Amino acid sequence: MSVLSNIVISARVRRSPYFAATQRYGCKAYSVYNHMYMPLYYQSPEADYWNLVNGVTLWDVAVERQVEIVGPDAARFVQLLSPRDLSSCAVGQCKYLMMTDEKGGILNDPLLLKLAEDRYWLSLADSDVLFWAKGVAYFGNYDVEVFEPDVSPLQLQGPLAAMVGEALFGSALNDLKYFRFGEFELAGMPLIVSRTGWSGERGYEIYLQNSDDGDRLWETIMEAGSPHGIAPATPSAIRRIEGGLLSYGADMNLDNNPYEMNLGRLVDLEQEADFIGKAALKRIKEEGIRQRLVGLTVEGGPAVVPSLERAAITLDDRPAGRITSAVYSPSLEQTIALALVPVEHVTEGSVLTVQTDAVPLEATVSPLPFISKKTV
Amino acid sequence: MSVLSNIVISARVRRSPYFAATQRYGCKAYSVYNHMYMPLYYQSPEADYWNLVNGVTLWDVAVERQVEIVGPDAARFVQLLSPRDLSSCAVGQCKYLMMTDEKGGILNDPLLLKLAEDRYWLSLADSDVLFWAKGVAYFGNYDVEVFEPDVSPLQLQGPLAAMVGEALFGSALNDLKYFRFGEFELAGMPLIVSRTGWSGERGYEIYLQNSDDGDRLWETIMEAGSPHGIAPATPSAIRRIEGGLLSYGADMNLDNNPYEMNLGRLVDLEQEADFIGKAALKRIKEEGIRQRLVGLTVEGGPAVVPSLERAAITLDDRPAGRITSAVYSPSLEQTIALALVPVEHVTEGSVLTVQTDAVPLEATVSPLPFISKKTV
Repeated sequence: MSVLSNIVISARVRRSPYFAATQRYGCKAYSVYNHMYMPLYYQSPEADYWNLVNGVTLWDVAVERQVEIVGPDAARFVQLLSPRDLSSCAVGQCKYLMMTDEKGGILNDPLLLKLAEDRYWLSLADSDVLFWAKGVAYFGNYDVEVFEPDVSPLQLQGPLAAMVGEALFGSALNDLKYFRFGEFELAGMPLIVSRTGWSGERGYEIYLQNSDDGDRLWETIMEAGSPHGIAPATPSAIRRIEGGLLSYGADMNLDNNPYEMNLGRLVDLEQEADFIGKAALKRIKEEGIRQRLVGLTVEGGPAVVPSLERAAITLDDRPAGRITSAVYSPSLEQTIALALVPVEHVTEGSVLTVQTDAVPLEATVSPLPFISKKTV
Repeated sequence: MSVLSNIVISARVRRSPYFAATQRYGCKAYSVYNHMYMPLYYQSPEADYWNLVNGVTLWDVAVERQVEIVGPDAARFVQLLSPRDLSSCAVGQCKYLMMTDEKGGILNDPLLLKLAEDRYWLSLADSDVLFWAKGVAYFGNYDVEVFEPDVSPLQLQGPLAAMVGEALFGSALNDLKYFRFGEFELAGMPLIVSRTGWSGERGYEIYLQNSDDGDRLWETIMEAGSPHGIAPATPSAIRRIEGGLLSYGADMNLDNNPYEMNLGRLVDLEQEADFIGKAALKRIKEEGIRQRLVGLTVEGGPAVVPSLERAAITLDDRPAGRITSAVYSPSLEQTIALALVPVEHVTEGSVLTVQTDAVPLEATVSPLPFISKKTV
């Protein structure tokens, strides 16, 4: 995160059902994600971060659009779209997935929710998976419907999220295991609540199913959270990089494969079922990858972060990859980054050089995550 | 266009090869389009507009990402993706297309460039057509490659564009007919130049094929345009609404079909070839549409425009559609809008009411375009 510019709110970009609330609560900056405005920060990225790691925060993540896949062949079709073996996935379970194309390139890294034996949601990162899934289904011989339902998630994240969750949904919410979801009701609003999130903290995602109720849901949660000091916040670039969580578009895209992202565990080549990319990923695994995502600690404080955007890395004046994400961690009091680096240079402790427009900076390969998850 | 907010430049969103130039030339606001930063204005939307309609302007439209389709079955595959009969499309010709899904819903409205008998570019509006085309090709029996090439367009638009074009490319450019393109070279850079654009003015699109040359191409054009008072500008919401040009995401999306957009001329149901959506569009044509895009003049000056964003329309207190785009036209000294209105209310001169958060506003159905094209 670096340069601040202006964005003009226009009718082309969709507003979230919580957009008015985010304005009322003082959201200061937005980006665009899945063709919708995505709140970026309220007080400041740093102040929002401290609210997240010390208390409890509410995020408008309606940009996590859902693709619903429903019908007799839904399970088979969802498996086709994902390298991960889903044969043991139970109703009520969430799975983090890579979606790959025929070359093993990453199309998205959604969260899958299995709503019923014949009904699934893909909760998306920033790409039009609806187009991909509809396209594949066009000539595919699968009895499925593929569409975007009226579903708009919020995230309730932070160490005090469990207390706010209990205040809202009762003690039943405490029984929800990590990466499981349930159906709940709040003031007449039917909701799906999953114990998941993009923070590394304890937290929940709350899926509203009627966009007319956006303001009411937001305020109901804020009221229940008020005794616990709840604050509005957003997906935190700081906390997610500390936690080694990936951002589609920054750390990976169609040119990358899951092995490069250290996510070979999400590719089950031995399963019986076919999936798109299987042959390519098998070949990539056999031949070995050339680059890999690593953590870097970088010299210099917050002021150097803007200069790190997609910066080139060198070793002995030869190309050695590039930065994919960078941020200053107030907890570690250290600039940290994710980078794609040739495999021969990924040894922990290796010292590389980041080429910025100003001075070159020293960077050290570090274990990921920088700070462990506290979700469980 | 209304509320100004901040956008934080982050590594997730791609920068155009011209991004540094747009910053240097004082671009004040960006949006995000096809996962890239899109410049929104320099001096002000109004000042940029006058530069466009009175002189010549250069726009960074690298956000118009290309999908390249190449291979023995390219022509057949491109036809499959479009309701428009492309059988007579010649090499060197551009076609404005609707792309539809199996229900006749609009996926994108790209410009097609036929580069060779077996090679095409789709120059895109804001949606991941790459995912759609790759998805359809997965089970489709077509011998094609589908990918995003390294191509980044600029637009040179305005009544003086021809003079700058001639200064750059010589008089050969004047022979280029409307919706035709040719191969040109500039300071060693191979370029495709088409006589097209999104302004209603005379103009060209210039397709750079090496993103390392962004800055050099920008400056070369600026230098040639300098004697003609060239100014940096952006796709003008004012000029495109005046001209009745559509914006994907604002005026139409997957829920709309080409007939609702008054673009039945782009749907050739009688052609022999099959295309995706043919059966659905045939049915829609037979049954008739329920709503249609119309022009509206709206009472009140520039100050009312923000309140018109996606505003509901009524007639005798009953729902009568909604605004899709609105702007104040300095040329007409009139607030103008595009709106989706039930077909029974689209008679020219009909007076409708726009419901805003403040007072209701009177709106009159008007012929489109508000101002004719000057392209030819």
